[in-house]
Amino acid sequence: MSYAVVARYLTRPGKEDEVLTLLDSMSEASRQEPGNRQYRVHQGAGDPRVVVLYEEYDSEADFEAHCATDHFQRYVLGGVVPLLESRDVVRLVPREGVSA
Amino acid sequence: MSYAVVARYLTRPGKEDEVLTLLDSMSEASRQEPGNRQYRVHQGAGDPRVVVLYEEYDSEADFEAHCATDHFQRYVLGGVVPLLESRDVVRLVPREGVSA
Repeated sequence: MSYAVVARYLTRPGKEDEVLTLLDSMSEASRQEPGNRQYRVHQGAGDPRVVVLYEEYDSEADFEAHCATDHFQRYVLGGVVPLLESRDVVRLVPREGVSA
Repeated sequence: MSYAVVARYLTRPGKEDEVLTLLDSMSEASRQEPGNRQYRVHQGAGDPRVVVLYEEYDSEADFEAHCATDHFQRYVLGGVVPLLESRDVVRLVPREGVSA
């Protein structure tokens, strides 16, 4: 059973492009992790300040390892988080038979 | 460019299994739609009443067509929604180069 995470951000006004650029780098680095299955970045279709990440890992331990990487520290905690007005992260278990 | 949707539900107390069973049927039917790329059902790792859907379509028009199907009427509007305490749906545009 894999392990998924949905993060929903609201960027500070005018900071969405900077956040999305940082997340592009984060996405590229995260997909190299052995336990990563998906790391998808989205922008709100209605509100461009809404940014949503859909991430999937082989296990919860692989997600924990993701949070301990240099690129998480650099791009997310050091880069993106200071540019956010709000940040919500929900941890999820995909239903059986959840093939893409 | 594809089109994604994240729906986040909080079920009424004790209704999560009923909701998840309905969504399993919805997931199976939705994946048969020509414009559907993903329809993934998740349960909260912490709170079992949290249910999150990650859906992806070829276009916004394909999502609109999804919302007009019989199975959406039957399983979501007729089955799941009355069993929810809250429902939030956000429409999203995946970033370029967002291969799974």
